[in-house]
Amino acid sequence: MDPTIQPRTTPGRRFVELAEMHAKEAADAAERHDRDGTFPAEVFESMKASGFLGSTVPEEFGGLGMGSVHDLTAGLARLGRGDGSTAIAANMHLAFGLIAGRTLRGAREVGDEETASAMSGYLAILGSGAIGAANATEGGTDLRHPLVEAVRVDDGWSLSGRKIFSTLSPVADLFFVPFRTQSGGGYESGFAIVPRGTSGQTILDNWDALGMRGSGSHDIVYENCVVPEDFVQVTGPWGAETEMSLVIATAGTVGLLGAFLGIAEAARDLVVDMAGRRTKAPSGRLVAERHGIQHQVAEMEVDLETCRAVIERSSRLIDEQVTERSPNEVTLEELHELGGRFQCAKLVANRKAIDVVDRALTISGGAGYLTSSPLSRLYRDVRAGPFMQPLSPNEAYEYIGKVALGRPPDLEG
Amino acid sequence: MDPTIQPRTTPGRRFVELAEMHAKEAADAAERHDRDGTFPAEVFESMKASGFLGSTVPEEFGGLGMGSVHDLTAGLARLGRGDGSTAIAANMHLAFGLIAGRTLRGAREVGDEETASAMSGYLAILGSGAIGAANATEGGTDLRHPLVEAVRVDDGWSLSGRKIFSTLSPVADLFFVPFRTQSGGGYESGFAIVPRGTSGQTILDNWDALGMRGSGSHDIVYENCVVPEDFVQVTGPWGAETEMSLVIATAGTVGLLGAFLGIAEAARDLVVDMAGRRTKAPSGRLVAERHGIQHQVAEMEVDLETCRAVIERSSRLIDEQVTERSPNEVTLEELHELGGRFQCAKLVANRKAIDVVDRALTISGGAGYLTSSPLSRLYRDVRAGPFMQPLSPNEAYEYIGKVALGRPPDLEG
Amino acid sequence: MDPTIQPRTTPGRRFVELAEMHAKEAADAAERHDRDGTFPAEVFESMKASGFLGSTVPEEFGGLGMGSVHDLTAGLARLGRGDGSTAIAANMHLAFGLIAGRTLRGAREVGDEETASAMSGYLAILGSGAIGAANATEGGTDLRHPLVEAVRVDDGWSLSGRKIFSTLSPVADLFFVPFRTQSGGGYESGFAIVPRGTSGQTILDNWDALGMRGSGSHDIVYENCVVPEDFVQVTGPWGAETEMSLVIATAGTVGLLGAFLGIAEAARDLVVDMAGRRTKAPSGRLVAERHGIQHQVAEMEVDLETCRAVIERSSRLIDEQVTERSPNEVTLEELHELGGRFQCAKLVANRKAIDVVDRALTISGGAGYLTSSPLSRLYRDVRAGPFMQPLSPNEAYEYIGKVALGRPPDLEG
Amino acid sequence: MDPTIQPRTTPGRRFVELAEMHAKEAADAAERHDRDGTFPAEVFESMKASGFLGSTVPEEFGGLGMGSVHDLTAGLARLGRGDGSTAIAANMHLAFGLIAGRTLRGAREVGDEETASAMSGYLAILGSGAIGAANATEGGTDLRHPLVEAVRVDDGWSLSGRKIFSTLSPVADLFFVPFRTQSGGGYESGFAIVPRGTSGQTILDNWDALGMRGSGSHDIVYENCVVPEDFVQVTGPWGAETEMSLVIATAGTVGLLGAFLGIAEAARDLVVDMAGRRTKAPSGRLVAERHGIQHQVAEMEVDLETCRAVIERSSRLIDEQVTERSPNEVTLEELHELGGRFQCAKLVANRKAIDVVDRALTISGGAGYLTSSPLSRLYRDVRAGPFMQPLSPNEAYEYIGKVALGRPPDLEG
Repeated sequence: MDPTIQPRTTPGRRFVELAEMHAKEAADAAERHDRDGTFPAEVFESMKASGFLGSTVPEEFGGLGMGSVHDLTAGLARLGRGDGSTAIAANMHLAFGLIAGRTLRGAREVGDEETASAMSGYLAILGSGAIGAANATEGGTDLRHPLVEAVRVDDGWSLSGRKIFSTLSPVADLFFVPFRTQSGGGYESGFAIVPRGTSGQTILDNWDALGMRGSGSHDIVYENCVVPEDFVQVTGPWGAETEMSLVIATAGTVGLLGAFLGIAEAARDLVVDMAGRRTKAPSGRLVAERHGIQHQVAEMEVDLETCRAVIERSSRLIDEQVTERSPNEVTLEELHELGGRFQCAKLVANRKAIDVVDRALTISGGAGYLTSSPLSRLYRDVRAGPFMQPLSPNEAYEYIGKVALGRPPDLEG
Repeated sequence: MDPTIQPRTTPGRRFVELAEMHAKEAADAAERHDRDGTFPAEVFESMKASGFLGSTVPEEFGGLGMGSVHDLTAGLARLGRGDGSTAIAANMHLAFGLIAGRTLRGAREVGDEETASAMSGYLAILGSGAIGAANATEGGTDLRHPLVEAVRVDDGWSLSGRKIFSTLSPVADLFFVPFRTQSGGGYESGFAIVPRGTSGQTILDNWDALGMRGSGSHDIVYENCVVPEDFVQVTGPWGAETEMSLVIATAGTVGLLGAFLGIAEAARDLVVDMAGRRTKAPSGRLVAERHGIQHQVAEMEVDLETCRAVIERSSRLIDEQVTERSPNEVTLEELHELGGRFQCAKLVANRKAIDVVDRALTISGGAGYLTSSPLSRLYRDVRAGPFMQPLSPNEAYEYIGKVALGRPPDLEG
Repeated sequence: MDPTIQPRTTPGRRFVELAEMHAKEAADAAERHDRDGTFPAEVFESMKASGFLGSTVPEEFGGLGMGSVHDLTAGLARLGRGDGSTAIAANMHLAFGLIAGRTLRGAREVGDEETASAMSGYLAILGSGAIGAANATEGGTDLRHPLVEAVRVDDGWSLSGRKIFSTLSPVADLFFVPFRTQSGGGYESGFAIVPRGTSGQTILDNWDALGMRGSGSHDIVYENCVVPEDFVQVTGPWGAETEMSLVIATAGTVGLLGAFLGIAEAARDLVVDMAGRRTKAPSGRLVAERHGIQHQVAEMEVDLETCRAVIERSSRLIDEQVTERSPNEVTLEELHELGGRFQCAKLVANRKAIDVVDRALTISGGAGYLTSSPLSRLYRDVRAGPFMQPLSPNEAYEYIGKVALGRPPDLEG
Repeated sequence: MDPTIQPRTTPGRRFVELAEMHAKEAADAAERHDRDGTFPAEVFESMKASGFLGSTVPEEFGGLGMGSVHDLTAGLARLGRGDGSTAIAANMHLAFGLIAGRTLRGAREVGDEETASAMSGYLAILGSGAIGAANATEGGTDLRHPLVEAVRVDDGWSLSGRKIFSTLSPVADLFFVPFRTQSGGGYESGFAIVPRGTSGQTILDNWDALGMRGSGSHDIVYENCVVPEDFVQVTGPWGAETEMSLVIATAGTVGLLGAFLGIAEAARDLVVDMAGRRTKAPSGRLVAERHGIQHQVAEMEVDLETCRAVIERSSRLIDEQVTERSPNEVTLEELHELGGRFQCAKLVANRKAIDVVDRALTISGGAGYLTSSPLSRLYRDVRAGPFMQPLSPNEAYEYIGKVALGRPPDLEG
């Protein structure tokens, strides 16, 4: 009986198979990239070659056509079991394809040629092997209020500002860059798709963190970085929630929960294996036979099952509400209700993943605290979970509570 | 977006519809039966009349043929939202039919005529409207070691001993009574199906507890209670785990988790509704607009989503491993693995249901502590969860830990 | 080694001795008063006779002169071990004396004759055996914003409105009744000391709650209830925090934490005793020898020690900041800092007391859930803790956070 | 109002003053030693020069004569606020002196010249500025069953084996080394005091861990390491608990709880300060004014107060039972009761310290996850707490439960 999250669609099953294969490669490279703070570019090369990175690209553009975020999450859990950094970086790209595919589907339904054409363009690029990444986070503000500024120029738009936590930036070919632009006395929001190497874009090599050290989450500075008109879309008033932002906030990030579950599963396996091999003086009995250890392992199992359960439920709900319905029939209110439930799952899944690794350390009895133990890396990696966008735990309770109480879910500024 | 657990089969959908209808009746009667400690016999009459009580009886015997424990659990959550006592009592009967149906299926597959005939007999009785109940719990021992003793007599077997917590006993027509019997120098285990009113069976009218006061969980005394040979089966050595005992321990009890979820959902609805109506001096603002309340409601939602998630996952796993497979291909080892995961879900679901009601009390701000508030009843009812068989939290960690570590899951005597 | 909270002063030691004596009487009466919802007036008669109720009255007025809230809390823990209702009711009176004594001391220091005279008056009454009670809580508002209204009349002030949760009301002789009164375009706050039986005061006999059923926490209706000028003090703008309100909020209520600790200690003792006597089939071993039980008992001990520790620290800090210093040198800011720390202790102590009783139920294995078990009463009683004034958990986090962050600790209206 | 733990004795006050001074030095050096994995030898030089390291040495041997573990813990909390590694290393030495002083006192009381002479010898060495360290932990066994073996040789005893986690080893002058030695058909336990540089002692330079990287917790290999007869004591059967082992297990390690509290306090201060300075778009309001942040800060305060409270209570109980009584009147049973309560405090204090730092990370909003933030170091350091000897959480519940239930507290082998 395999307790891990199981795929539910045909492309999902293929995706999970590939994920298991790449998880081994990622695991082999993880310690080195963690120590050196380098990006596992070779693993991404392999994932490109196998077609894994094309999983969420529709078949017409050469991908696997996997549209289920449940299955995406299942696969990223396998990959995260090998290496968390690799898994969260992969999600950036895979979610990009999945959401672009969905947007294309919606645009075609209503005959919105312009959007359909733009999305087809991105998907063709992704289908040909390019890697896409969100590049949305900034310091001192939230996702709804980007501070990077865009100014109209002759040949398109010019971007200036700084993005942080730009996961996957070492190998990404396309960057999804939200901005604001002056309009009347106020601001409007929008986003640009910036091809790697566009003049004015500087990817700093400065990612140096407690964990997820192989995720390449550098700062990116934009300084008069000009992108053509076609690659830019203005979406509405600065701070306004859009259907796309709410879809990204759920379907685009649920895969990350899988990555952290994978880290927890890896930690669990390490100590269960250890307890079945190690003995202790004076009795020489197996550690696994001690009641105290059995109790700690049980608590770990309880947390792990909880982590899996909330991810399964949440990703299934997102599929039912978002990926399996027509994009044009989903309302903002429904997306907020879904968002509230997703934030519940995010809080629990991230916390339980942390708790599982913490308890694995306890069970390891000191050995896991050494740098030479993979547990000490997992402990640092898994703590990144609650920082993943959106929302931080500082904001999530307000959002969940307001949605549940039927209040407008606008967070205090 | 309906957050409750949704049925997945056609009979399940019908079952859930009926459950919602009966939940209203149960809710109307709940306060009275709680106060007086009486059994909602009239609700059971109505559930018999609607066919609800036949839901798990195979169609060939006149039932709905619902075989999914996931859907059983979904329906009991609706019923529990009306009244917890009613829901746990209903599970006793519904699980009886579901497990007898599965046993019949397995016996037919391998041509075991004797078992098939016995099960057909029970199912025909249930199909005709009779109510069945497990009557397994005793004081001072565990389920694997019944102390009620059976002795062979001329016209069958004679039972003596005492069962406790005999939920549903006020209206049950058939009682499933595990026993032990001397054999050689030791004991063997078995069970009898005792029809109500058999001479020597005395149902005491002594159920008086903190909560679940309408569940009719009286003591039943057996004193030279003779049942015919056909209604008795000896299953193996005293204390040995059997396939049936492990199936009862999972498929037979997971529905109870639904009942406690339903209680939690009722508590949540009460306070969310209250917060949307009540104002407070000096501002006169709605309670729902206070940040402190929003935070507490959010924590309640997080727990509720967690409760739903672990129940969904667990009941789906039981369906996959038990109700959707041939009974003859399931191994004891698989059932233990499943049992370990189910015990994780049981610990979390019962605890989270308790936490939800506790937090609802907090949000209610004192009003909920009054006897006149339904919350004070829900608080008493929901605490019964962890006592539901098997296992108690005193034992569950040992079981989960041993299974996870690959040790024989025999609990210390 | 006695793990309970130990008194630190000479009158405290006497107080604790008496508390232990009265705890036995209270324990004997507890089940009856819980069942019938009656007040243990006979226990209060005995506590009056022994001098226990005079413990916090200064010696010059015939009391024991105990000024330490740490020792008050230690004694109420003993009393609560016998009966929680009795202990919380006793605190109402004992805190009254302690705070009046402190106020008198402060007034004498600065030569405030009027206040000194009023306080001497109340203390003389208390010293002669009268019982005082706070009567502050109202529905739909908080303590800082009383809605009971006072109007000046010829012979004093006339009060109208309704107070709830009036613990100790069946035997109290003096009631401390906060009110508001119109002044200019707005309101001012104040309080009246209302002697029992004043015309216009109606003590309803309507206390009927989940637990603390012997606390006599009836509603009291005031309808043109006239009290003489001398018994009334107007303290400042409606909603303004005063030194006295902040002292009541800490020194006046910390004793309640002791009462709930006592309930938890009683639950712990019941199950530890049970585990050392009961055996279980098939092995016949003592329940106390099971690893699963040992683990649960250990978790209970951890919670109990935590409960004791936060109460000890908090009551010692209150003594250092409030009862051992000159009332005239304490600033509002210091009282808020102290209040923040006290609220931390209140959250933890109440929750841990609840957790201890909950776990005792788990350890009891079903027997504790029966009405006949004292545990089922303790489970209902202990849940009252978080409702005790001030603050509710709905508000406490806001207060603690604001104080810690150096923001004005005004709660949102 | 200073919320930190306050000293209660005169030498304790001096000790805390010095601790605050050295905390600044330790803080300045912490980042560097963490990065390089080097030992803060210069801080220890300064602590030697100021007399800080002599605090627990009796005055007759030139020390401060501080005998209170409560005050020791108070001072180590200050030091830990500067640097955790420095604080846990200092405890090794300070506890050595405190326990030797107590042992001397006990020996003198009963006229045990031999012990008195040995202890006077060690204390004279410590009084002259030497640093002592426990060197007790080994892999694959517990403290009661050392595997390092001692063999009698002509000029004393010869030690062979390996110790791990030898905190303070880079600068220690004397090592307290428990061993076992063959005797009859079995083993006896004992300890040697090994002067640094004794032939056969090799201090490896191999400490490389997740955190506490400046604690110098290297492995030490003993290979035919001969120590003179005078420096060796055989204490009884291998595995037997002794008065000294139980005193070390409480009085010798409670100071470590202070070190972890200090880490938590440092994390709290960092984020409270940050929240009072940082603003966020779009409103530009201070982070400290957000309700979500206030709530998280409140939860952090609750945990911090709990951490302080359990440490205060536990260290006070140890003083009452151990350091303030005659060593000759304390029984093993009393020490076990005390040990049970200390283990409760250890579980809570270590966990709450971890929780505080974890929440500080949450409040920091991603910035704290960067290597450049001190929070990321505190997060790694604070996790060492539960590994500190004795007991691990894997064993503590068994011990606490057995003591509480009156069973012999022998842990399963």
